[in-house]
Amino acid sequence: MTNPEETRIERFRRERSALNETVMRYAGQGIKRYYHLDWAAYQPGALDVKTKELLGLVASLVLRCDDCVTYHVDRCLQEGVTSAELQEALNIGLVVGGSITIPHLRRALQTWDEAVAAGLHPSAGSAAGASDGGE
Amino acid sequence: MTNPEETRIERFRRERSALNETVMRYAGQGIKRYYHLDWAAYQPGALDVKTKELLGLVASLVLRCDDCVTYHVDRCLQEGVTSAELQEALNIGLVVGGSITIPHLRRALQTWDEAVAAGLHPSAGSAAGASDGGE
Amino acid sequence: MTNPEETRIERFRRERSALNETVMRYAGQGIKRYYHLDWAAYQPGALDVKTKELLGLVASLVLRCDDCVTYHVDRCLQEGVTSAELQEALNIGLVVGGSITIPHLRRALQTWDEAVAAGLHPSAGSAAGASDGGE
Amino acid sequence: MTNPEETRIERFRRERSALNETVMRYAGQGIKRYYHLDWAAYQPGALDVKTKELLGLVASLVLRCDDCVTYHVDRCLQEGVTSAELQEALNIGLVVGGSITIPHLRRALQTWDEAVAAGLHPSAGSAAGASDGGE
Amino acid sequence: MTNPEETRIERFRRERSALNETVMRYAGQGIKRYYHLDWAAYQPGALDVKTKELLGLVASLVLRCDDCVTYHVDRCLQEGVTSAELQEALNIGLVVGGSITIPHLRRALQTWDEAVAAGLHPSAGSAAGASDGGE
Amino acid sequence: MTNPEETRIERFRRERSALNETVMRYAGQGIKRYYHLDWAAYQPGALDVKTKELLGLVASLVLRCDDCVTYHVDRCLQEGVTSAELQEALNIGLVVGGSITIPHLRRALQTWDEAVAAGLHPSAGSAAGASDGGE
Repeated sequence: MTNPEETRIERFRRERSALNETVMRYAGQGIKRYYHLDWAAYQPGALDVKTKELLGLVASLVLRCDDCVTYHVDRCLQEGVTSAELQEALNIGLVVGGSITIPHLRRALQTWDEAVAAGLHPSAGSAAGASDGGE
Repeated sequence: MTNPEETRIERFRRERSALNETVMRYAGQGIKRYYHLDWAAYQPGALDVKTKELLGLVASLVLRCDDCVTYHVDRCLQEGVTSAELQEALNIGLVVGGSITIPHLRRALQTWDEAVAAGLHPSAGSAAGASDGGE
Repeated sequence: MTNPEETRIERFRRERSALNETVMRYAGQGIKRYYHLDWAAYQPGALDVKTKELLGLVASLVLRCDDCVTYHVDRCLQEGVTSAELQEALNIGLVVGGSITIPHLRRALQTWDEAVAAGLHPSAGSAAGASDGGE
Repeated sequence: MTNPEETRIERFRRERSALNETVMRYAGQGIKRYYHLDWAAYQPGALDVKTKELLGLVASLVLRCDDCVTYHVDRCLQEGVTSAELQEALNIGLVVGGSITIPHLRRALQTWDEAVAAGLHPSAGSAAGASDGGE
Repeated sequence: MTNPEETRIERFRRERSALNETVMRYAGQGIKRYYHLDWAAYQPGALDVKTKELLGLVASLVLRCDDCVTYHVDRCLQEGVTSAELQEALNIGLVVGGSITIPHLRRALQTWDEAVAAGLHPSAGSAAGASDGGE
Repeated sequence: MTNPEETRIERFRRERSALNETVMRYAGQGIKRYYHLDWAAYQPGALDVKTKELLGLVASLVLRCDDCVTYHVDRCLQEGVTSAELQEALNIGLVVGGSITIPHLRRALQTWDEAVAAGLHPSAGSAAGASDGGE
């Protein structure tokens, strides 16, 4: 059932979608509206989408939720966040949340690294997305 | 070592039991007494068992512990909690604990859904357990 | 500005109300809808209000939020939860959440004890509310 | 010792500074370097200071630390974050972290509201800082 | 009701004792046994009392519970932990738990500093307890 | 890619090492320095290494991070912590952090038990490491 060519992000998208269908079969109005509120919080407003996704990523990292981190890593990727921006945001999460976040930070960068290598970053083909990084 | 016909709940029961045997080989009096106190907290008293298991479930959801959620989903199932009751309790956990609980809520309902489908709910055979749900 | 005759619960109600007015002056649609969802989660449904307030109380205790605990202690009081029921629910929170919850459990019972003594429990005047407790 | 004309933010600045002096008298190299790393994480880089302070604010809100929230509310104020931007960031923290963050969100907006009223926002005197808000 | 000559630790001891009396009036067997288990965990065994109190201190710091931190700061003081040992343990809590622990670390050292100055450390009168610290 | 003869600790060492290489390719100075601070916190000082590793273990248990627990279980093993010392430290984590830590405690002892059986404890060959345990 696992496709060996699938990246972590692609597998996460597929499994999350299937599980959300199960949730919706049981969900009352409360859970359904929560899903909508969650979606609405990341729509553009006074802050742009990229900033909001970085906020979601750092919140997920300090609360140490791998699935939430993967979701926002994926969204940051789609919004064209650069590797340098990503690692600065993760660094804030690390400093605020401590070394207990390191296993999640490791998996976040593994997911990001694999997705960039698979050409999922909007800058793929140009040099911009992959060549930045450390100092 | 994995039986493909085993449900998540049945596998959880088996693995939990094996690991608890390891714990007991190392446990001093403190850990042993903690296990007893934990068991005693869910015995009937001024509150009935079903209410107590729902309390344990929501506490586990907001603290985001999958194994603890699975344990209380199983206990709720055994106590005949209905799907409508379960989703209302999970909704309180979601509202209190935020979207960071959603991955755990997803897995809780996947476990519940699979167990109901496998006929593990006491109402299996009647229509009561499986037909309720969303609005 | 502090009324010495006011109980903790009464002061909490007053201050919470004033602060929520400030929130509403700044809140966009997201925060406003969250407040509504939060309110709706505790309305009667498949589970009754008393059970839902106990779920909110235990979730607040294990997440160790004093204001949230005070709010649900107040709501449990209004719903006629007995002292024996309250302490059994708090015990589940203690066992699940550990001794780190004890300072919050202490303040929860101080708030409850003061409110019962001030006649705020619906059973005040009868013997029912105050005479139960330990074993 | 309390100056009644002092805002919450001004009192926080004063007390934090005094306590950090005590910390430095006991701190070894580890704690001293941590303080430096913490400072460095919010310096401008691939992300600008305003974005980084919003990241710190949301991380502090979901981890429910009042002092940390006050610190980043103050820093957001100094960086000219608008009320509309602030409430959108807080809304993300609320949705991710749940209603358990509401007491902290209330105090964050109380602190912000008081500081704006005291003329501490860089836009004070113009209409920009104070007139935005809800929808 | 506040004695201005009382240290933070002395006030904490007095208030904690009064609140625990309230808890015991409501507590069933579960809460009472939890209190005993909590006490027993810090008795000497394969690990000595000083090490166990440092473990309790660091656990309390990373879980960010001021009352629990104050309690274990007091116990460390009674067991003759030195300032250098204390700050190394706190540093581990800081690195593991992140900058979100800093407000608690600040108050821990304020409590410690005040108690050492008040002569509550067993080494008071000798130079040993107060003269160590940073590097 | 999985070697069936590898213990959990050995697999963890290998995977952690590979992931840290990915982190270092993206890490700026902040993350790199955090890794160094984290390492430095456990070096010998006023407290010895064994005590510091027990502090790291209990902090990781109450924060419920399996990878962090596995890392410190491995380090405790290397430092010659005995099974009796380990279970007393874990008991403090359990009492402070509650039953929500039990799944992590179970996996910690499974990892420890397997490593002791595989001869990874420094006392292997003598009776000292494996024969202690419960009361």
